[in-house]
Amino acid sequence: MSAMFKFVAVSGSLRKGSFNSAILRTAQKLAPEGVTIEIAEIGDLPLYNEDLRPGGTGFPAPVQAFREKLATADAVLFAIPEYNFTISSPMKNAIDWASRPPNLPLAGKVYAMLSVSGGLLGGSRGQMHMRQIMVSCDGMTVNKPQVFIGGAKDKFDADLNFTDKAGQDLIRELLANTVALARQLQK
Amino acid sequence: MSAMFKFVAVSGSLRKGSFNSAILRTAQKLAPEGVTIEIAEIGDLPLYNEDLRPGGTGFPAPVQAFREKLATADAVLFAIPEYNFTISSPMKNAIDWASRPPNLPLAGKVYAMLSVSGGLLGGSRGQMHMRQIMVSCDGMTVNKPQVFIGGAKDKFDADLNFTDKAGQDLIRELLANTVALARQLQK
Amino acid sequence: MSAMFKFVAVSGSLRKGSFNSAILRTAQKLAPEGVTIEIAEIGDLPLYNEDLRPGGTGFPAPVQAFREKLATADAVLFAIPEYNFTISSPMKNAIDWASRPPNLPLAGKVYAMLSVSGGLLGGSRGQMHMRQIMVSCDGMTVNKPQVFIGGAKDKFDADLNFTDKAGQDLIRELLANTVALARQLQK
Amino acid sequence: MSAMFKFVAVSGSLRKGSFNSAILRTAQKLAPEGVTIEIAEIGDLPLYNEDLRPGGTGFPAPVQAFREKLATADAVLFAIPEYNFTISSPMKNAIDWASRPPNLPLAGKVYAMLSVSGGLLGGSRGQMHMRQIMVSCDGMTVNKPQVFIGGAKDKFDADLNFTDKAGQDLIRELLANTVALARQLQK
Repeated sequence: MSAMFKFVAVSGSLRKGSFNSAILRTAQKLAPEGVTIEIAEIGDLPLYNEDLRPGGTGFPAPVQAFREKLATADAVLFAIPEYNFTISSPMKNAIDWASRPPNLPLAGKVYAMLSVSGGLLGGSRGQMHMRQIMVSCDGMTVNKPQVFIGGAKDKFDADLNFTDKAGQDLIRELLANTVALARQLQK
Repeated sequence: MSAMFKFVAVSGSLRKGSFNSAILRTAQKLAPEGVTIEIAEIGDLPLYNEDLRPGGTGFPAPVQAFREKLATADAVLFAIPEYNFTISSPMKNAIDWASRPPNLPLAGKVYAMLSVSGGLLGGSRGQMHMRQIMVSCDGMTVNKPQVFIGGAKDKFDADLNFTDKAGQDLIRELLANTVALARQLQK
Repeated sequence: MSAMFKFVAVSGSLRKGSFNSAILRTAQKLAPEGVTIEIAEIGDLPLYNEDLRPGGTGFPAPVQAFREKLATADAVLFAIPEYNFTISSPMKNAIDWASRPPNLPLAGKVYAMLSVSGGLLGGSRGQMHMRQIMVSCDGMTVNKPQVFIGGAKDKFDADLNFTDKAGQDLIRELLANTVALARQLQK
Repeated sequence: MSAMFKFVAVSGSLRKGSFNSAILRTAQKLAPEGVTIEIAEIGDLPLYNEDLRPGGTGFPAPVQAFREKLATADAVLFAIPEYNFTISSPMKNAIDWASRPPNLPLAGKVYAMLSVSGGLLGGSRGQMHMRQIMVSCDGMTVNKPQVFIGGAKDKFDADLNFTDKAGQDLIRELLANTVALARQLQK
């Protein structure tokens, strides 16, 4: 086990002003020493279609790059906007591409998730689905804390910095618990 | 209420040889007199991104065309492949685009779903999620029969015709129940 | 269709001071003219065990009484506390007993649900499960409004009357939508 | 970590002839050397009611005994019959009692689950819910293999021994993976 710990982070929203994407940038600043968070882009992945795989087993270039980035992670951090009571289509698309054999860049990894929403529920239904989906990806998802950031409009400044102190503490705790679980499982 | 009844059908798989797409073509042949099933294409929809909406409230052309087609339907028939224990990314993408205001082409409609899979479970987990998602879309989903076609390889011929008699009867029953429910609700 | 409309209501909590039970009593007072809400007790049902069925097809007396009460309903109103991310054991127990053949007192009925919780999420996860469970019971569940009453402690008085005006309006809307849907389906 | 490894096992069915209970007895015989499986009874637990807690924080005697048994486990094995698309009421009842503070006998444990059903789906929907519920209980659930035993009638002999060789291998694999995960996490 290296002394450094690397998260790859994925936001389920492609919107430039997305609160879910913004909170990943805040997480980067909150990460303790020795922990890095690299944000992976998923907006350039084609819509999932098995027929797009070169030779039947390859992957389109942006998919290949995304999978290679995931493979370098010690843990994966997902920002989960909730659309229609479940995860967003860009997030589902990224997972569908990442979970195909051969080699499974998500398998055996530790997963953490958080959500931001405008309403009060904070994305709890989307995370419920995501936890089931991650069973299929065959890693281990951190149980606690469950991070649902509701009422987003009052918790970000004009530059999309997440300014809520209680929420920042939750994110720190989530990162710490994820590192701890991953290290237990890497032994 | 017109004497004719129109389904718009959507397959969650973009693969040319998809069993889920093929079963919609079989459903077209099994539809009783007076009932038509038009298959909508969703492979040309962009990956969902709020920033792609012209003027903030419009829709990209393929999305607009898809929404207009849905609006003509008396009921919507979904073929639901299961990827990672939930619906596929192309299906989620189509729903995310179809469910945005203004005007809600899915709201108030009746929904029916069926699934084909290679394995034995037949897509039961994907349909579980889909039923929750359809609550968000604010229509009514037919309860029965639940159509899970497992062991697909033995139930389609070389031209991808669905040849299983018991399964064909289930599809006929699903179509009939959907028409009946929609007509009750249109009164 | 009779001019009167009858709900049978079930609370998933057996606690005397339960907010979820209390809100059903408030719903009784909010019901419009011509609409009655009878609360069914489920605390005396035995823990579900197929071996307890007299002659294999009968039901223990409290179960039989509960099923007969459900059979008189035009619609069923469920108050859904959330325990461990899903519906409570007393609620599940009541549903398991009510959903066994012969005769299915829940089938073909319209269902409405609401939840009260101490926390902010208001029971959204429990209702997600409940909506799937009700598919198995083969009735139609009202989509909207989704009634999640969070922060319960500030919304009930010392006598457990639900005093939140916005929440009362939601309950009125839920009752009205349920009656409307049931009447459409009874035609 | 002791050289011995102990499962406590819980069946969600109270029926004497239950296939789900029977498969736990088969699992006892399939356990490798050094691994024991103790089956806990849950049929004598009262229906969950917070008012039954002596002094508000105690537990009724059968609940207390069940919780103490769980506390001795290195891992918990759940046999999950599916009633109404989710876990059975006796199972939910056992979990509701086991998950209340103070002290949380399920927290931090490793969980494994399997299901037997008469139909083909093998209980996949019940396990989906159970995996979400176990997040609330704050342990780690083994991802693989997913054990869905469908078509039960042909796979048990007259004495309710589970005789299906492929299924027995799956159970052995599930037990081995559970022990391995628990040992990683105990380090």
